[in-house]
This record gives sequence, C-alpha cells and structure tokens, in this order.
Amino acid sequence: VKTTITLEAIDGAARAGRVHTARGTFTTPCFMPVGTRGAVRHLAADDLEALGADVVLGNTYHLMLRPGVDTIEALGGLHRFTDWDGHILTDSGGYQIFSLAPKVDDDGAVFRSVYDGSSHRLTPEGAVDVQRRLGADIQMVLDVCPPAKATAAVMRTAVDRTALWAQRARRQFTNGEVSVDRQAQFGIVQGGLDLALRTESAERTIEIGFDGYAVGGLSVGESRDEMLPPLATVAAMLPHDQPRYFMGLGDPIGMVEVVALGVDMFDCVLPTRLARHGTLLTSGGRLNIKRAEFARSDDPLDPLLPASPVARYSRGYLRHLLSVDEPTAGRLLSLHNLAWVFDFVARMRQAIVDGRFESFRRDVHEVWAAS
Amino acid sequence: VKTTITLEAIDGAARAGRVHTARGTFTTPCFMPVGTRGAVRHLAADDLEALGADVVLGNTYHLMLRPGVDTIEALGGLHRFTDWDGHILTDSGGYQIFSLAPKVDDDGAVFRSVYDGSSHRLTPEGAVDVQRRLGADIQMVLDVCPPAKATAAVMRTAVDRTALWAQRARRQFTNGEVSVDRQAQFGIVQGGLDLALRTESAERTIEIGFDGYAVGGLSVGESRDEMLPPLATVAAMLPHDQPRYFMGLGDPIGMVEVVALGVDMFDCVLPTRLARHGTLLTSGGRLNIKRAEFARSDDPLDPLLPASPVARYSRGYLRHLLSVDEPTAGRLLSLHNLAWVFDFVARMRQAIVDGRFESFRRDVHEVWAAS
Repeated sequence: VKTTITLEAIDGAARAGRVHTARGTFTTPCFMPVGTRGAVRHLAADDLEALGADVVLGNTYHLMLRPGVDTIEALGGLHRFTDWDGHILTDSGGYQIFSLAPKVDDDGAVFRSVYDGSSHRLTPEGAVDVQRRLGADIQMVLDVCPPAKATAAVMRTAVDRTALWAQRARRQFTNGEVSVDRQAQFGIVQGGLDLALRTESAERTIEIGFDGYAVGGLSVGESRDEMLPPLATVAAMLPHDQPRYFMGLGDPIGMVEVVALGVDMFDCVLPTRLARHGTLLTSGGRLNIKRAEFARSDDPLDPLLPASPVARYSRGYLRHLLSVDEPTAGRLLSLHNLAWVFDFVARMRQAIVDGRFESFRRDVHEVWAAS
Repeated sequence: VKTTITLEAIDGAARAGRVHTARGTFTTPCFMPVGTRGAVRHLAADDLEALGADVVLGNTYHLMLRPGVDTIEALGGLHRFTDWDGHILTDSGGYQIFSLAPKVDDDGAVFRSVYDGSSHRLTPEGAVDVQRRLGADIQMVLDVCPPAKATAAVMRTAVDRTALWAQRARRQFTNGEVSVDRQAQFGIVQGGLDLALRTESAERTIEIGFDGYAVGGLSVGESRDEMLPPLATVAAMLPHDQPRYFMGLGDPIGMVEVVALGVDMFDCVLPTRLARHGTLLTSGGRLNIKRAEFARSDDPLDPLLPASPVARYSRGYLRHLLSVDEPTAGRLLSLHNLAWVFDFVARMRQAIVDGRFESFRRDVHEVWAAS
C-alpha cells in the first residue's frame, strides 16, 4: 500500500488533506502527541480516543530498551501492546543522536541506556527492523541530527551520513516483506540552517524515494526566524502528493507558521510538558495556573473551549491539585492542553478549507506574540 | 432531614440497606474511596462517577491546610470544588491525633502543618464548623484515637475526652442552622481492645444521639482476631435504624468480617495505595504485577472482571508502565483496584440479599487467607 496524501484545499502553501496508509486515513494538518514509552504521560489509549487523536508517536530508543522489542513483539506489536487502534509513527532513535550525543561512525551509533548504562548499537538497518517489529504504521529513517548551529564540517558529515543511511534504510525497508505492505517509511531532510545544504539533503532524500518526508534538525534551539527559511526551501522541493512532517514542534505560532509553508504533520511533547508545570494553552494565550489570582477562580481553564474534557473543573480546583502535587493535576492539565491543540489544529484546517488561512494566522500571532 | 438506614435484607448480622440523607440515597454495604486532598490519587470526579462510587471521603486536616476552608467555601464548598455530586463524608481530623501525635488537652488538639510547620488548633466545635463550611453530607465528630495497645490510663482519658468532645460537637452541630438541615453528624466509639471501655464508649455516644455511629481506633495495627471482638460488642449495641461506619478498612477479609458483624460503611486508602505499588486485587487473590512472569502476559489483570475500566490493557503493558514509572500506571492500576472493590462489595450485598452471605464469606476466606 503506497502512502499518499490527497489535498482537499490549498490556501497559499497551506494544505488541508487526508493521508492514506495501510491502516486507514487521517486528516491534516495533524498534531501527533508523543507516547515516548508506550503512553502519553498520565494518559492511555482510551483518553487519546476521547481526545480524537489520529496519530501517536512512539520512541524507538526508549521502547527498545524498556520493555524491549522482543516483549512488544510477543505482545502483538505496539498497537496491541498499548491497545491503540489509530496510527502510530515511530521515530528512529535519530533524535537521541542529538540529545544524548552518542558515538557515531559511518556504520551507525552506539547509545548508552538511560536505564542501566548498557551499550546498544543502532544502525540504519537495525532501526528499520526494530520499527518493523514494533509494527509502526509510519517508520522514520535513522538520521544524523546535529545541533542547528554545528560547524560546517559537522553539518557536512551529518548531511552525507543521513543520505547514505537513508539509502541503506530504504533498501532494508523495501527488502522486508512485512514493511512494504503494512508500513510506510519517511525520509528525513537535514542540513541545519544552511540553505544550500538543505537543498542538497532534500534532493538526495527525494531521489531515494520515500512514502513521506520529514524535516529534521530544526526547532532544536534556533529562533523561529532562523528556522523558517530552511523549512521553506525544503518544503518547496517536496513532492505534493506525499505527506510532509516537521519534527518536534507544538507551539501555536510555530504550528501556524510551518503549516503556512506546506507542512502536514508535526509532533511535540510541549503541550503535555507545559501542562505538568502549570502552563495552559487557552484562546486568550498562555495561562499560568500557579498564579495566586486563580486560587478562588471558578472559571474553567478556557471558557471558549467548552468541549474540553476538563471544562467541568475550576481553575481554583486545578491550581490546588497542582500545588499539592496530586497526580490528578498532571492528568487533567495534560488533557486540557491536548484538547486545546487538537481544537486549534481543527480550526486551522477549517480556515484553510474556507480560504481564510491568512486571517487565522494573523489572529494566532496577535494572541500568542505577547504570550 | 434525619439520616436513617432502611434495611432491605439481613443475613445473620450482615445488613443490605439504603442510607437516606439530605443529598439522597446510597446502598450499603458501602466502600468509600479516600480523596484526602480533594481527589482520590490519580483520579477525578468523572472517574469516580464511571466507577459507580457513592460516597467519597475528604480529609478535614489536609483540606483546612491546603487550599484552606476559606478557599473551598469561596468556590462553593467541597462538592462544587471537586465537581462531585455524590455523597461526601469528611473526617474530623481525629485520625491525625493518632498519626501525627499532636499535643492534646481537654479543649482540643494543636497540630503542626505537614506543609509549612505552622500551628493549628482543632477543637470539637472547630471541627464541626470546618466540616459545615466544607459542605460535607456526613461529618464526623472530633475524637481521640489512641494506638490500639495504649496503656489503660491513656485509653481511659481517650474514652472520656471522646465522650465530652462528642457532647460539645453535637451541641455545636445542632446549634448550626445549615448543618441540621443539610448535613448528618456521626459519633465515634473508642475504647481500644477493652470490651468494657468499648461498651461504655458506645453507651455514652448513643446517649448523646447522632445520625450514625462510627467505630474508630481499630484497624490501627492490631490483628484481625483482636479487632473483631470490640467491634462485635459495639455493633450489637448500636441502633438498627442508623448507619454504622467502620473507619479505615478495605481488605477483602476485613470487609467481609466487619459486614458480618453488621457494619454498613467503610473506607480505606489501601486499594489505591496497593495499586500504586503494583499489588492488584483479583478474583484469584493478590497479584503482584511487578513479577517477571507477567512481562509477556496478554491477559487482563482479572479475567473475571471484564467490566473493569482497564480490562482492555494487558498485564504486560501495565507492568511495563509501572516499571518505567509512567504516571499512567498509577492511574490504571488504581482504577482496577477500585473497580474490583466496588464489584466485591456489590457481590457481597447480593449475597446478603440472597441469604447466602455465609457461603460468600467462606469463599472470601478461601481465596484471601493464602493471599
């Protein structure tokens, strides 16, 4: 089954579409919550169903260490393991080449386990096999993700390795019987903030040919003004009939800006991490629930989001639960932020369909620039 | 509104009834989960509704310190604060006279705040007022709860103070306009393991006259064989048309044994605390989900409890979530144990209605004696 995207509407470069996979269909733009270790923090599959999530991210690095691929495979794969029937996209472990700075050579990377310090080698082929065994609907190639402001030499090596690894990953994937029928594989474009390197990386990735394309190595510490030009360069080159995924982004202005450049999918831990620390996303902008002014507030977190699963609870109650460290707080606040993001993305999609995306985009800037 | 219990069935001394309060009705035997600080750990009102809980316990000591009675009152009372429409029973802070061992004199007790070390005086009258302002459906008198094996002198003083405080609490309660119409007040019988003291304490409490009667100062470290005779002594003396509450008990054999002696209500943090540490209640007895044998088990926690809200998740998945400290584990395992206890209590009630309580009781011993 070839993964494609059909476009319902295009407004400027912004796309409202449907991605078709072996599992089914999901609409875009699509925000994907992150279930690093088999669960979005505080939540389970029933919560994600109630929130209307379409695609959940799983993290290859963490899952291969705990509980291990053998265990997940023995329990029927990641879908059955988590009892999640929607789409699953697994990352390749490439992000840990950025965050854990492991030893990398042409063959692959050697990671230390954050759990017990044990040593694990991950190669492009190995990452394909692990994700095949996990049963991801969409797998990602193993890439080399350097810091956005790495030296030219580091960036050069990263682009070359990413391209060579992508070839190896694609070969491994297309040789695997299960993968081609049941799974999709996305390539990843690297190249930091250098437009020429981005162009080269995009060309080399597109030439190999994938079911979809991700833009990696951005939203890793650089400013938004620095982030958008390389994305624009790459997005203009990507095939129109395949989904585009911007890795690791979930703030409102960021989401509207990457969608403005033609991105279809994005993921981030930000909404749930912010929630656990008391920062809520609302139609009025950021709300810090820890502030004393909310102690006796009977209002819901966002009066303009009555469909939120936690709309029945007051700011005062939620503030109390957070202040006494009740785990219920992390859960309810996470549910709110995810509900808000899904609603935000649905409104963004509708704006594209209605041909008023630019006005939506201006409104988002107005609310969130000050937030 | 006078709180009463109507009995649907009596089997031996075991009672299946309905408690009628100003708020409404709930069936007995009744297990009350504990929402110490305004939430049962990991859960919120929507979860308790889905579980079919009838009565939730709130803890006066914790709530008066955080967020404070003023705040809860400003937010409409504990029901509106937690958005829980079922019954709420608040303890008086008396348990903290046992657990925190504060300075106690004839007037009351001076507690230290576990949050900031600040000093707080609680008197029988003050406890009535706090619980009135919280808006509890059932308030408890402030009692003196000594260790079960305290010296005779300590026990004597505790029984006397408990009786004198009960008089003061009853006077304060009946003088309060709101309380009598909207709330019920339960007295508490003390007396440790001494049957004569228990008899005396029961007489003095019944003489004052309350809407219901609790047996306190048991299940505080003594064995079950030591616990039951004083309970039997007291239960035989209590008025038949008012509810009886055994404080702080939630293990299966314990529940069946106190119900066998005519108890209607009981509460405990045990099911949720056990859950958070990986010990599950099942129809086969205790199950320690941390055991390696469950790593690849696709079975639900209790195959004989298909209505459990977490029946869809496998033992292997739940074990994994607990072993990597995902907060989702605490939640799902707590939901299971509470669902199991509510189902257990419903089956116990049905056994009383059907006149086969003794056989139910034997079965419980058979499964749980070895567990």
